Amino acid sequence: MAGFFLTLEGPEGAGKTTHTRLLARVLQQEGYQVVATREPGGTRLGEAVRTLLLAQDTGAISPMAETLLYLAARAEHVARVIRPALETGAVVICDRFLHSTLAYQGYGRGLPLGVLLELNRAATAGLEPDHTFVLDVDVAEGLQRVGRTRDRLEAEDISFHQRVRQGFLELAAREQRVTVVPTGGGIEATAGLLAGKVKEVLRAHAGRK
Amino acid sequence: MAGFFLTLEGPEGAGKTTHTRLLARVLQQEGYQVVATREPGGTRLGEAVRTLLLAQDTGAISPMAETLLYLAARAEHVARVIRPALETGAVVICDRFLHSTLAYQGYGRGLPLGVLLELNRAATAGLEPDHTFVLDVDVAEGLQRVGRTRDRLEAEDISFHQRVRQGFLELAAREQRVTVVPTGGGIEATAGLLAGKVKEVLRAHAGRK
Repeated sequence: MAGFFLTLEGPEGAGKTTHTRLLARVLQQEGYQVVATREPGGTRLGEAVRTLLLAQDTGAISPMAETLLYLAARAEHVARVIRPALETGAVVICDRFLHSTLAYQGYGRGLPLGVLLELNRAATAGLEPDHTFVLDVDVAEGLQRVGRTRDRLEAEDISFHQRVRQGFLELAAREQRVTVVPTGGGIEATAGLLAGKVKEVLRAHAGRK
Repeated sequence: MAGFFLTLEGPEGAGKTTHTRLLARVLQQEGYQVVATREPGGTRLGEAVRTLLLAQDTGAISPMAETLLYLAARAEHVARVIRPALETGAVVICDRFLHSTLAYQGYGRGLPLGVLLELNRAATAGLEPDHTFVLDVDVAEGLQRVGRTRDRLEAEDISFHQRVRQGFLELAAREQRVTVVPTGGGIEATAGLLAGKVKEVLRAHAGRK
């Protein structure tokens, strides 16, 4: 496919939404055609699923039902937004994707990573990120950044969020296509660090073509 | 597992809802503990997914997203309603289950049956119906019974519904655990036919224990 598929991942309060926006601006200034999107969401169905998943009053959902809801939103998102954008040659920046499924539903909820990878393959018809950046943040600090109004997932206990963070770091250690970006230096420093790494990856990709 | 898991399947307008109710009553009169339920639905999450799936204003959904939404509802339904009921020894009668996924998303939408079976296995943690009854109805007649107010799936064109019906019949021809019940004789005759076949299956099951 002609474009490049970047995903931003990380625990709650890592600043994914902010950095998706800032990174999109930097890349646009560099002349790239950029599509910034987020999961779950990015489509009408996805936003409805997002509301269902994050509303506190939805109550407890079994881990597999939660996974399948995220993947339903992902299937729609890939078919209607991500693949069409990649086919026009755009750099797609997606706020959460496969690695959130592995970190939250795998490391966090305890579902087997192999089953999650298989379900994800069916949902995306095999589309994988070209590169993933994990914005890393200490769990307590991240939850403090999120503040008092927490959604259903943010409201999980601290050990859940610790397993999720550990999951992101382990996935990054295993996969060459996953890079950890520490966020402790503040928004501006993090944005600079991230943009530098992204440009490097995009240049390497252009060189391989 | 102690109970018995029956599913009622069939094209639109076959009378599944009516016959689920009538069959539950007959089996209760015979002394069985019965739990009657339906898909998608049967749980709070399931009803929300049902609304999303059947509302005309949800618009077009990709076949894989549609499948994963049904399976999310199924995962919740199995975990919270069906398995617990079977564990108490109940006869569970479910209005739509696996064979609707195969008929609608497989034969109707064109997704591969192998992928659907694999996704279903993950969603249900391997739970399969002990026996399935397909209430068969001519497509035009079924849609006429449904009447003018059609949901998103009922509003598909006639060739879609013909593929779905053909799918149910082919699945029944392939699997010994699937029995076709013609509905042309009217509600009372169909209810009698169905109840007779169900009692036979339950007696055979009791004999095997």
